[in-house]
Amino acid sequence: MVDKPPITFEVVARDGDARAGILTTRRGIIETPVFMPVGTAGTVKGIRFEALEEELDARIILGNAYHLWLRPGIEVIKKCGGLHRFTGWERALLTDSGGFQVWSLGALRKITEEGTQFRSHVDGSLQFLSPEISMSVQAALGSEIVMAFDECAAGDAPADVSRQSMELTARWARRSRAEFDSLQSNALDTGQTAPTQTISGAQALFGIVQGGAHLELRRESLSRTTEIGFDGYAIGGLSVGEEKSVMWRVVTDIAPELPDAQPRYLMGVGTPEDLVEAVSRGIDMFDCVLPTRNGRTGQAFTSRGKMNVKNAQWALDTRPLDENCNCSVCKRHSRAYLRHLYLSGELLASILLTHHNLAFFLDTMRRVRQSIRSGDFNEFRREFTEGLNAFEEDKAVGNTEV
Amino acid sequence: MVDKPPITFEVVARDGDARAGILTTRRGIIETPVFMPVGTAGTVKGIRFEALEEELDARIILGNAYHLWLRPGIEVIKKCGGLHRFTGWERALLTDSGGFQVWSLGALRKITEEGTQFRSHVDGSLQFLSPEISMSVQAALGSEIVMAFDECAAGDAPADVSRQSMELTARWARRSRAEFDSLQSNALDTGQTAPTQTISGAQALFGIVQGGAHLELRRESLSRTTEIGFDGYAIGGLSVGEEKSVMWRVVTDIAPELPDAQPRYLMGVGTPEDLVEAVSRGIDMFDCVLPTRNGRTGQAFTSRGKMNVKNAQWALDTRPLDENCNCSVCKRHSRAYLRHLYLSGELLASILLTHHNLAFFLDTMRRVRQSIRSGDFNEFRREFTEGLNAFEEDKAVGNTEV
Repeated sequence: MVDKPPITFEVVARDGDARAGILTTRRGIIETPVFMPVGTAGTVKGIRFEALEEELDARIILGNAYHLWLRPGIEVIKKCGGLHRFTGWERALLTDSGGFQVWSLGALRKITEEGTQFRSHVDGSLQFLSPEISMSVQAALGSEIVMAFDECAAGDAPADVSRQSMELTARWARRSRAEFDSLQSNALDTGQTAPTQTISGAQALFGIVQGGAHLELRRESLSRTTEIGFDGYAIGGLSVGEEKSVMWRVVTDIAPELPDAQPRYLMGVGTPEDLVEAVSRGIDMFDCVLPTRNGRTGQAFTSRGKMNVKNAQWALDTRPLDENCNCSVCKRHSRAYLRHLYLSGELLASILLTHHNLAFFLDTMRRVRQSIRSGDFNEFRREFTEGLNAFEEDKAVGNTEV
Repeated sequence: MVDKPPITFEVVARDGDARAGILTTRRGIIETPVFMPVGTAGTVKGIRFEALEEELDARIILGNAYHLWLRPGIEVIKKCGGLHRFTGWERALLTDSGGFQVWSLGALRKITEEGTQFRSHVDGSLQFLSPEISMSVQAALGSEIVMAFDECAAGDAPADVSRQSMELTARWARRSRAEFDSLQSNALDTGQTAPTQTISGAQALFGIVQGGAHLELRRESLSRTTEIGFDGYAIGGLSVGEEKSVMWRVVTDIAPELPDAQPRYLMGVGTPEDLVEAVSRGIDMFDCVLPTRNGRTGQAFTSRGKMNVKNAQWALDTRPLDENCNCSVCKRHSRAYLRHLYLSGELLASILLTHHNLAFFLDTMRRVRQSIRSGDFNEFRREFTEGLNAFEEDKAVGNTEV
């Protein structure tokens, strides 16, 4: 057993509901609000760890218990010394519990009180995941932050379905907590760093607020989750196909009610604009596949909005993707070259667009933090959001930048 | 017109027929023997220029006139300021003429005295390439080293077919030289650097020795090519499906006869062992897709031989790909992780294997150069070649390293 908390969190500046904080883990200090690149299968798709560390200065990335449990399997990762040693990523890791991934399998899964039965997307084999199994998987992975095993309702689910799902999530949260505590007290976390570290060698556990689009269910979930007690709190079950207005209603209502002294994490969100808007409601942590996934499909996020690099518009354009960006891709390569790479099916298109997109997301969060600390968040938010419409406005007035 | 030679070459050390030299271009100094990574479509597949420059210190890469001519097209590259500016690669470039690529289309091409008609692999359109067109394409690309437009015979072609092909190559070499000189005297090279450079702004032109497997044709081709006069000489038409013994017979016979004062380039070769063997016959320059292509298909080149990362043998192996390698991949990642990435179809598998393979090829050439300069080339060659059989020997004695 350890006597120090596994993570510490301190709010160091506020601007309205927006907060700038310091999250300290056994593998480094993370300034919040923070965007966590998604590293599903032990790799942030299309980018090397060196680039994430050195140029982009990502302090924490995500791993998915579901994917890693199915492949390469927990025994392999355990024998290789946990997820950090297995992958070579030495900074902080947050692992998702698998609840959301199993939920997204749709018809392929069957949910009972005990857990979820489903067919593996890798080999079709029948698998079973429960709060207890998820906790032991995440202990073996050795992430700094473990997520409770939850159940997600569809974004448009009626109140009775959402209630059942929320109540199951609450019971699973309690079981997650109990199993997690048992594993921690037996020091069964394979990711522990050297005992001389100044922070505890133990993992932290975050609870997840569910309840679909129904505010009364969300509030009940919030109260039942905080009653159990976690090291941080997440809002789950958003950005899963519901109307954007639903997401903002829930975030606006719930985020400020999450415990003030702990980090608040909005799972799976979102666009650059979403991040800034959610920060204004008091959110501290984000993860999203958009910068990496869209990078692979030829879409760049820029300070002037989204651009499809394949458009003929860029064929002779020697300017960088984003003239306001200082990333190594924008310093060196032109829109014309990136368009050529993408149309030629070259790996480098995915590599460079992924890099730029992550640079843009992480730089946006850096600017968010600075603006909160200097008390200029609302000005930043207004200018940033206006800038994102520039490409659209160019089109509207027939000025398509060629 | 320029009055300085476009490149200079000096042999600075010899060990038997092996030579260490300094090739000076308008975009930097290249120590030979040198391996040139293949950048077919304006990108060395799967690796960023930063890695090629900073860690691997590649001084020259290849571009393919054929591919770039078809896509994005020469007008695009011209308008973007030549291939260097278009891609962002500022070091030296050698461009292949397209002769070999068109030849490799097989039944899709038709060869006449004037040139070659063929169908584009991109869109199936009918295209025509000739010595004159190839020279103007390469002038537009602005590479430091331009290759003559040649015709390649099949590795097993009978003497009369090989003779026809060799004679056509000789006539095309003369036309390449004439057109190249005309373009240069009109300063139509879009890749020119600033006029203050200490070396000429003009391109260099290399001739290509053909003649298939027939030594008498090879010798005749050599004499007809040197008679025209080029800035360097290549041996083409090898490593195209012929027996390995044929390649070595030709290289052993022809390489030492190539002009001593100019760089000698063995096109499209080869494995690490091939490179070292060809150096022992007096070759200075190489290019090959093996490190990049095999990297994408899960094969690593190491000092102990080739390894398929997907083998079950590596599932729990926490050692680096090559324990004798200092590259950033070997410093950080294990065989077990690389196997997982490859089996999961992750982009990072291609990225890391490509990086390691290029590091191994370039490091091998660095060691080759050092050994020639220190007079230890034969010892290096023996030890290096013995090492490459280690994995095979492990298997033979049942020691499979797990």
